[in-house]
Amino acid sequence: MSSKVKLPKGTRDFLPSEMMKRNYIFSIIKEVFHKFGFDPIETPAMEDLTTLTGKYGEEGDRLIFKILNNGDFLSKVDEELLRNKNSLAVTEQLSKRALRYDLTVPFARYVVMHQNELQFPFKRYQIQPVWRADRPQKGRYQEFYQCDIDVIGSDSLIYEAELAQIYLEVFDRLGIDIELRMNHREIILGMASHLGVAEKVVHFTTIIDKIDKIGLQGVLNTLIEELDFDADQIEKTEQLLTLKELGTIEELLKDDESAVQGIRELRKVFHWVNHTTGKTPTFDISLARGLNYYTGCIYEVQAKDVEMGSIGGGGRYDKLTEIFGLKNMSGVGISFGAERIYDVMEELELFPQEVNNNDVLLCIALDEQSLDHSFGLISRLRSNGIRADLYPDVVKMKKSMKYADARGYAHVLIIGESERTSGQYSVKNMTDGSQREMDEDGLMEYFYAG
Amino acid sequence: MSSKVKLPKGTRDFLPSEMMKRNYIFSIIKEVFHKFGFDPIETPAMEDLTTLTGKYGEEGDRLIFKILNNGDFLSKVDEELLRNKNSLAVTEQLSKRALRYDLTVPFARYVVMHQNELQFPFKRYQIQPVWRADRPQKGRYQEFYQCDIDVIGSDSLIYEAELAQIYLEVFDRLGIDIELRMNHREIILGMASHLGVAEKVVHFTTIIDKIDKIGLQGVLNTLIEELDFDADQIEKTEQLLTLKELGTIEELLKDDESAVQGIRELRKVFHWVNHTTGKTPTFDISLARGLNYYTGCIYEVQAKDVEMGSIGGGGRYDKLTEIFGLKNMSGVGISFGAERIYDVMEELELFPQEVNNNDVLLCIALDEQSLDHSFGLISRLRSNGIRADLYPDVVKMKKSMKYADARGYAHVLIIGESERTSGQYSVKNMTDGSQREMDEDGLMEYFYAG
Repeated sequence: MSSKVKLPKGTRDFLPSEMMKRNYIFSIIKEVFHKFGFDPIETPAMEDLTTLTGKYGEEGDRLIFKILNNGDFLSKVDEELLRNKNSLAVTEQLSKRALRYDLTVPFARYVVMHQNELQFPFKRYQIQPVWRADRPQKGRYQEFYQCDIDVIGSDSLIYEAELAQIYLEVFDRLGIDIELRMNHREIILGMASHLGVAEKVVHFTTIIDKIDKIGLQGVLNTLIEELDFDADQIEKTEQLLTLKELGTIEELLKDDESAVQGIRELRKVFHWVNHTTGKTPTFDISLARGLNYYTGCIYEVQAKDVEMGSIGGGGRYDKLTEIFGLKNMSGVGISFGAERIYDVMEELELFPQEVNNNDVLLCIALDEQSLDHSFGLISRLRSNGIRADLYPDVVKMKKSMKYADARGYAHVLIIGESERTSGQYSVKNMTDGSQREMDEDGLMEYFYAG
Repeated sequence: MSSKVKLPKGTRDFLPSEMMKRNYIFSIIKEVFHKFGFDPIETPAMEDLTTLTGKYGEEGDRLIFKILNNGDFLSKVDEELLRNKNSLAVTEQLSKRALRYDLTVPFARYVVMHQNELQFPFKRYQIQPVWRADRPQKGRYQEFYQCDIDVIGSDSLIYEAELAQIYLEVFDRLGIDIELRMNHREIILGMASHLGVAEKVVHFTTIIDKIDKIGLQGVLNTLIEELDFDADQIEKTEQLLTLKELGTIEELLKDDESAVQGIRELRKVFHWVNHTTGKTPTFDISLARGLNYYTGCIYEVQAKDVEMGSIGGGGRYDKLTEIFGLKNMSGVGISFGAERIYDVMEELELFPQEVNNNDVLLCIALDEQSLDHSFGLISRLRSNGIRADLYPDVVKMKKSMKYADARGYAHVLIIGESERTSGQYSVKNMTDGSQREMDEDGLMEYFYAG
């Protein structure tokens, strides 16, 4: 019946009930960001294609949505490429722009372009959609929101501590019980050196990063298969990966100056966080998160009571803006996996009732004169900041009450001749069915939330 | 120096100071929408190209940004079209998706697709960017926000009155003095009949719609030139277009039943609005706003104290969802020209000081121990809901004070050994330079905004 209209695959609409839940999450996140001194920015959906290509690897380049040039876009395209139907080579002649693939590269471009207008350390957050031509799957969309918060232009560990505090406060306020795991890139490098695979650290890291999925034994087997680990190396690895204490790893890696420095940094951050929140992040020596990008502390967040990948992650980076020619801009940032946080909250039923049931009051008028009267009444309620609504026609009660029910109004006010003339209204509580009599002043008082 | 990175023409970044002003506008708008019982929705940036084409005229179709198909997009393209470099004909073979051009067509698509999940009358608002490949000019961008609010699925005039109330309340709260002009499509039709050009009503309307730009005499001249008006028609037109009173026009068009109905509707809306707000919209018989689309009341808003086109407009429509096969869905909607509202507020300096100066407090530590102490202090302030910040390193005062100044902190707290040991802090007001001594409880009280 809904004819043939449809959405592009991998995209979706948001119904009001979904929007209100999403807004609930974002409003808590923004409130905390604001309190910690972070300001919002936005960048355009479209970037120059050259700004984006080459930043996400070959696979990433393929997944970037390109915008077809406007006008007579074929006129300047090389004829031989067209004849050979060489799609890949012709892309840059057909498309100058593309949709952003993440918020990180646009942020780097932003900092470089606006470096003279910004105050460093620059504390910003950005909550906007990104687009990826991934194969759509359950829970994976081609358009989804990212939510990033970064400080750039300072290497102070204060910011590592602030970001950990922010994770703890946001998830506490959302009611999600989390484990915040942290590690340090220099510890991973130190571990690789200790095991004699310093020059293969990228490959080594990719393997240990899989421990969540394949377990310790799986990691050890893979190290044997892929990196030719011998019995001694395996024993040492097993010892390292089961360490839970910063002190023990410091003892083991004590000759590696950078590793020791990394351990001290983590310890300092843990101290600050514990001192101010009473909580301590979990040290996790196997946590890696894209080693090539991060240079210092690394974060990852998981919800405790539900099976779901990480719902947040981040770390310190030193070379983000170098891709656009600006050096010496150390930064640290984390992101919130908004879509997954939504799923966690749905699964654990953490959204407060009010989020979905915020249609405070519906007036239903029984005749035309009462409609007029009701419109005056709800206008005055609204002037006092109360969310109130009026069923816009005189119809059968069955119809208007069905609407009240379906839209989830918490209270219904039925107004006919007697209410209109007496000024005494009967407020029906839609949850428990109870009724209360009150006059207009009573309504103001009862519904005023301010 | 900022190397060669740039943005696509017609697009822009938002700095924190701009974002805070934009958020100020949007938060007031959303607060009012919410109070009037409207709920947010969102649609994806990308729609099927076929959903959008043919809805905005030929020129509109050209200005839609198309997304290049992913993968080997040339493989299925007709070879002859490629050889002839027929850009126009090849477009639909290269592109299945496009960026939304406005919020209206996606909204129609949304209502049709979700008709069984929605409660009618459906009251929604939508604030999202749209994209148009217009030639960029000062104040005109290829990506800009639209802000639409509609009720669909009811023909009740209550909603015309609500939308007028919403215009009045939003602009009142923003501090913009406006003129809200209204007209009715049936009055324009009646006027055209009265002048004997009923069958040329579209052309006739286009001409009178220009009265703001070319004046009454310009309109009369154009009617002579383009519609061959004779002296009698010109006299009647002049009489009609200078009418300010609904009563007089009702007398003139009394034989035209639809026109009389339109006049009564306007009068009813004006009565409700006046009765509830003390203000009355201005009746403007020359207001037309795309007659083909609207079928009832029409709105337009202009700022009084500044030369700027309309900052809002809308009206009732009956056939919006028919393009996607759903009939009998009368609706009424208005939009807020967010970008122009921003410009008006800048020009009239209507943004409250606090919008830009919301960085409440910066702590500056004079030594490492004080940094530690300060981090504890601001963490406790934040736990009490206070926005507070800490300069993250021990540096020369000149440097940290320059940062405080540039970022616009309202207060600075300098913490050294004596403050740290005594627990007495000196709060410097950055606006007037005054200083106040207080302890931590004093700080909590002084800065607590809740």
